[in-house]
Amino acid sequence: MLFLIGKGVLSVTAQGFDQKLTEFKEYLKKMKSYEEAIGLLYWDMRTGAPKKGIGTRSEVVGMLSAEHFAMAVSEQMGEMLAYFNESDKQALLSSTDRTVVKECAKDYERSKKIPPKLHQEYVVLTSQAESVWEEAKEASDYAKFQPYLEKIVAANLEFIQLWGYEGHKYNTLLDMYEPGMTVAKLDEVFGALREKVVPLLSAVQASPHKPETGFLRQRFDKQKQKAFSLFILGQMGYDFEAGRLDETVHPFATGLNPGDVRITTRYLLDDVNSALFGTIHEGGHALYEQNISPELIGTPLCTGTSMGIHESQSRYWENMIGRSRPFWKRYYKDLQANYPGQFDSVSVEEFYRASNEVKPSLIRIEADELTYNLHIMVRYEIEKALFSESVRVADLPEVWNEKYKEYLGVVPASDGEGVLQDVHWAGGSFGYFPSYALGNMYAAQIEHTLRKQLAGYDELIESGNLLPIKDWLTDRIYRYGKALSPNEIIMQVTGEELNPDYLVQYFAKKFGDIYKL
Amino acid sequence: MLFLIGKGVLSVTAQGFDQKLTEFKEYLKKMKSYEEAIGLLYWDMRTGAPKKGIGTRSEVVGMLSAEHFAMAVSEQMGEMLAYFNESDKQALLSSTDRTVVKECAKDYERSKKIPPKLHQEYVVLTSQAESVWEEAKEASDYAKFQPYLEKIVAANLEFIQLWGYEGHKYNTLLDMYEPGMTVAKLDEVFGALREKVVPLLSAVQASPHKPETGFLRQRFDKQKQKAFSLFILGQMGYDFEAGRLDETVHPFATGLNPGDVRITTRYLLDDVNSALFGTIHEGGHALYEQNISPELIGTPLCTGTSMGIHESQSRYWENMIGRSRPFWKRYYKDLQANYPGQFDSVSVEEFYRASNEVKPSLIRIEADELTYNLHIMVRYEIEKALFSESVRVADLPEVWNEKYKEYLGVVPASDGEGVLQDVHWAGGSFGYFPSYALGNMYAAQIEHTLRKQLAGYDELIESGNLLPIKDWLTDRIYRYGKALSPNEIIMQVTGEELNPDYLVQYFAKKFGDIYKL
Repeated sequence: MLFLIGKGVLSVTAQGFDQKLTEFKEYLKKMKSYEEAIGLLYWDMRTGAPKKGIGTRSEVVGMLSAEHFAMAVSEQMGEMLAYFNESDKQALLSSTDRTVVKECAKDYERSKKIPPKLHQEYVVLTSQAESVWEEAKEASDYAKFQPYLEKIVAANLEFIQLWGYEGHKYNTLLDMYEPGMTVAKLDEVFGALREKVVPLLSAVQASPHKPETGFLRQRFDKQKQKAFSLFILGQMGYDFEAGRLDETVHPFATGLNPGDVRITTRYLLDDVNSALFGTIHEGGHALYEQNISPELIGTPLCTGTSMGIHESQSRYWENMIGRSRPFWKRYYKDLQANYPGQFDSVSVEEFYRASNEVKPSLIRIEADELTYNLHIMVRYEIEKALFSESVRVADLPEVWNEKYKEYLGVVPASDGEGVLQDVHWAGGSFGYFPSYALGNMYAAQIEHTLRKQLAGYDELIESGNLLPIKDWLTDRIYRYGKALSPNEIIMQVTGEELNPDYLVQYFAKKFGDIYKL
Repeated sequence: MLFLIGKGVLSVTAQGFDQKLTEFKEYLKKMKSYEEAIGLLYWDMRTGAPKKGIGTRSEVVGMLSAEHFAMAVSEQMGEMLAYFNESDKQALLSSTDRTVVKECAKDYERSKKIPPKLHQEYVVLTSQAESVWEEAKEASDYAKFQPYLEKIVAANLEFIQLWGYEGHKYNTLLDMYEPGMTVAKLDEVFGALREKVVPLLSAVQASPHKPETGFLRQRFDKQKQKAFSLFILGQMGYDFEAGRLDETVHPFATGLNPGDVRITTRYLLDDVNSALFGTIHEGGHALYEQNISPELIGTPLCTGTSMGIHESQSRYWENMIGRSRPFWKRYYKDLQANYPGQFDSVSVEEFYRASNEVKPSLIRIEADELTYNLHIMVRYEIEKALFSESVRVADLPEVWNEKYKEYLGVVPASDGEGVLQDVHWAGGSFGYFPSYALGNMYAAQIEHTLRKQLAGYDELIESGNLLPIKDWLTDRIYRYGKALSPNEIIMQVTGEELNPDYLVQYFAKKFGDIYKL
């Protein structure tokens, strides 16, 4: 009798737990549904929504975002998180569910600490700032943008105070894009990287063996560019039944769910490579999102684990596959056939070298592989200084130009091609830039392991057999989504923490060879 | 002192009223935002969403629909409607706001009367039935679909009992698509129409002057079809900054908001007219939605007033403009130029007559203008009989075939091209079909007035000056949205109630001329 009662009690407890877990998961699924709807609305606005509907559409996005935010910080969310954070409940949760709870709690804590009024004002401020930035950039008029940037920096300093911080204030912002990343770590890896990249860049610039690049700038039919981009996407293993390719002004990838991961590109009619490498880049992001394990669908873990790891995949596919010699040994004849007559007198080696030309420039998004990280370091140094309050917003143009001269040896003629070039600060995305360079470092580290573990790696690429590479990455990275942290991923894949040496070695080998150093 | 207090009280009352009205409007705007998001998700699913994402996407639609429904029947909605239905509040409302309240109350009452469990079961039932119908149609297997249809009819009979009805039970269903429409009225207008159409059809069929139509069935390049469709849309005054044209299997128009009204079409490579007239038809729907007064945005009145009036606009533009002689006198040379060489030996008169060929057939959506209404009447008679319970679902194939023989003189060889041809019943849309024939009658009645009021009507069309027609319709119909009832619209525009004689006269003149009767 007692046994039966005991059993009954146990069963009731388990039932209560199961029921609460089901409720929690339904709640999260609903939040994810809002995200998917918002994602589609954005995609539509950026790919082809009629302009007269944009005003009303923005209000729809605003309404859905507000509903989503309200769910993230609701009393109900607070109660559910408190319940599942009790140690006896933690013990009953699966490892994945524990990570889900942790992820929601992090979000909840962060959002709850900002008074709603402050949050609302900030949303309005950044929305206005993005418009002002556009005009200021167009007119190269920093003074116009400066008061907005001052307010945005001040607001972020206030947020950091509310959120709390360890060590450097900027750490709190870095953590939003790369969980666990710190100024100490970035100083170390960026320092090591810069120390090796700068002399390599000097050697490259001094080399008499510069690639010819004129043939990259002919007239290339848009439909043909599109056809070739689609062909390469297919070769990468991008699943067209779970995605599509559209045109846009600012290319992006968006994972609505793993069965619907869309990419966009922009065709430049006088550049054979821009749309192609852009498509491969976004395709790399998309492979990640398409191959997240289906069991994570409907949870906050159903996305890439961090901006850095995400960028490692786009940069890996773009540069380490797409700009590699074995890749062009296989696909150059297809490119030639795609543009009849236009590359008859260009050898595959000449095309490969041209596609890897190194040339310090002013604009980050047009930078080559080697100098790209220097653009990032400039921004990193400035952001770090802003949040240690050792530099004033008013002084940024001057600081920017000095740093460009120091890091890249070039100086912008105007703020439009200088400090105003990126939208990130207008949107308040401080801490985002380092992700790009982290992505490059992660990518090289992962490629190093790939070469060791996947037999005949170069031969696979040279024979157009890219799927084993996609499968290897899926098995070790993609399928986990956000269930593992960036550090857990890089440790699991490569057996060591982030190490910039691999990127340095990769650069030395690749550009040493191209520039015959 | 008393005065001041009085004033204070008055002012508080007014303030309370204004505040409540603002809240009410915000509430409705939020509902409309859900509708817009759902509308875009549907558009996307039907135009190009990757198929592997559809499962998750359907759940997103389900979640948003549930939120929308919950708002429509919430306690808060009930309280707001009760408040604004008080006579002193009614007196303070603008005429438009009174209509808004009335519209919401109608929806609220209707939805509240169905127990949630019943509603949920019905949603599942019709969703399953649509899948089963697709298979049943493919296999011409009515027995497979019959049990679902029986349940759907039974559920609708139960709903009618809960909603209540006046006169015929079917009236309650008709009212959902055409507010105020009744069996008595339809019997009258359909009777009058059929009485005249049947002998006219006999005369047409007996005429030796049949148009040649072979040249309509050549091979027509898709891009050229699209280019010509876009050209004609532009001529109609369709605003491409407030819409776009895409491809789909089952063409439709969707008004997300007046600044974003999208249409879709389907290109048949062996038919010069199918996509073109389909586009003009959806374009007619779109002109209505694009030209609704901006002040109705965000309210439930921001859509067409009824299915019948909506269809009057699509059918007007498709048939009375697009299939008219003046239209082709103007645009035939453009069509010829669009398909070089393919119409060299075809005169404009031959093309006009071919595009108006009358030929009784089995399939409604392929029917010509004259026989189209007979297809509708068959369905109307069957629906009426189902809801007076004078015919059993089991007997529908037999009844269908008998009616087709009686009305059109043709008999389906299988149920696939007979009783199973339309999706409407699987979705539970009883009462919808009459809208199509109502649209034709409204259109002819409106055209009659247009000819009287717009000087040189035929000459306008013949000179490609279609915008005065669009403006006339905007001024009298489009801008009102749902702020006026269908009957108010037709009375205001034509000075009389729905009258089938105008369609009869239009048919007699047009087909008498084409077939030289």
